[in-house]
Amino acid sequence: MQIIQDKASLQAFVAKQRQEGKSIGFVPTMGALHQGHLSLIEACRAENEIVICSIYVNPTQFDNKTDLAKYPKNLHSDATLLVDASVDILFAPEDDEMYPEGLETISSTISFGKLESVMEGKHRKGHFAGVGLVVSKLFHIVKPDRAYFGQKDLQQYAVIRQMVADFSFGIELKRCPIVRETDGLAMSSRNVRLTERERFVASKLHETLQSAKNMLQEGKSLNEIKDTAIANICKHKDFKIEYFEIVDLKTLQSLSEMQKEPMAICVAAYLGQVRLIDNIIAEEFN
Amino acid sequence: MQIIQDKASLQAFVAKQRQEGKSIGFVPTMGALHQGHLSLIEACRAENEIVICSIYVNPTQFDNKTDLAKYPKNLHSDATLLVDASVDILFAPEDDEMYPEGLETISSTISFGKLESVMEGKHRKGHFAGVGLVVSKLFHIVKPDRAYFGQKDLQQYAVIRQMVADFSFGIELKRCPIVRETDGLAMSSRNVRLTERERFVASKLHETLQSAKNMLQEGKSLNEIKDTAIANICKHKDFKIEYFEIVDLKTLQSLSEMQKEPMAICVAAYLGQVRLIDNIIAEEFN
Repeated sequence: MQIIQDKASLQAFVAKQRQEGKSIGFVPTMGALHQGHLSLIEACRAENEIVICSIYVNPTQFDNKTDLAKYPKNLHSDATLLVDASVDILFAPEDDEMYPEGLETISSTISFGKLESVMEGKHRKGHFAGVGLVVSKLFHIVKPDRAYFGQKDLQQYAVIRQMVADFSFGIELKRCPIVRETDGLAMSSRNVRLTERERFVASKLHETLQSAKNMLQEGKSLNEIKDTAIANICKHKDFKIEYFEIVDLKTLQSLSEMQKEPMAICVAAYLGQVRLIDNIIAEEFN
Repeated sequence: MQIIQDKASLQAFVAKQRQEGKSIGFVPTMGALHQGHLSLIEACRAENEIVICSIYVNPTQFDNKTDLAKYPKNLHSDATLLVDASVDILFAPEDDEMYPEGLETISSTISFGKLESVMEGKHRKGHFAGVGLVVSKLFHIVKPDRAYFGQKDLQQYAVIRQMVADFSFGIELKRCPIVRETDGLAMSSRNVRLTERERFVASKLHETLQSAKNMLQEGKSLNEIKDTAIANICKHKDFKIEYFEIVDLKTLQSLSEMQKEPMAICVAAYLGQVRLIDNIIAEEFN
């Protein structure tokens, strides 16, 4: 595996692969890699001749500076994992490579309308503008045929899918399933910041999502499902719920009643200082 | 010259040129071609192995539906001009190729902050969001090394330059000088809609810009220059001025006094039903 830190070298590498007619798959990450990321790389490896993984903790998508400061960074151990996963290129730029003129010179902003008016977009001001900006930049630098994203960041996937369609990026997007710990906790780079006690109750999020999905299948009303789920999470006083929503899978708009089209049940909650998100898709009612 | 109407064929053509290591230059237009466009193609021809010109009257950048309906269309004569100019590919998509899911499904919007709060952006609501959208789409489809724009649409060039920098498009932009009729009127596809009388007075716009630039060189105050220029244009009662601004060339923000950095003098005025814009750059005071 080659580690590349500058755009020009990466672009030269990609141009050479293009001349040889090779397909290019891309997995953008913020590092602190876990099995969730590795599942994306595995999917990418299976479908592309060249696999490029990026590690870049993008400052413009953090609404919370403490979260940015505390975001775990382990480039060395990440690189070892990527070598084992047969990645061809690790693109690991510094800030001055991604924002060479400085953050303050950026004046273009992408917005996503109703799609970002809910859930993460509502609670993390400017988050998706930052995501749209950095993903656009990475897509323009890497120019992949396919790009891989995890279902855990369901709204991020929806926003990027919308952006890719609206601006005709011509990149095929893949949404890969959530990878979970044995107790059901969705893998996340932020989990290492949980205390032992918090880590123990953290799995209640997935347990609650699963119960809510069961209640959906039993035909319970959405209000009853939400009330039960929120009460269930709040039994553990360490949790502070930010939202619990049952939404249309495509538009991500909150539903007031059951529908035939695919739905998703999404939750965000603080456990101490750590913000966790999780979701479950319910589409088998078609 | 090959005329291509669908994205897939164009992308296949471009991919083949890339495999052969050829450089690709791009001139996006809305057709109704005149010497101004041909000067862009000439510049593009001189610097690239492959020249792609697009003709697409993009509905999302028209704030005025009458202007869209009346925008001149002459694909046949345009194609003849492009053959003579040694263009390799004319990309002439229909609406359902550019917006296959329909305009109403587009929910991403690019905005450009202060850069679009003035002049064209202020007077044509949504114009630059439409320009940003269609230029992004065309850049993603064509994937050129270089793209050519006319100075006449100075704010359009500034917005696209900002977008290309902010989103790391990796495309080199070229701003080409305004091409004028013998009486000084800036060439424009909309000029054919002027009556004979309107066409006669239209050249006063450039004459006024030139006088304003002379007054700048003489060290007159910006207020005096603006007042003189506006009075000069208003002598011809057919004109209805929308704005007359002396701005910083890079930021396009209005200046209240002379500066050492390059400036531009910009005007927009209606002559009957036709909206004309023109500008002149004043940078020799450095």
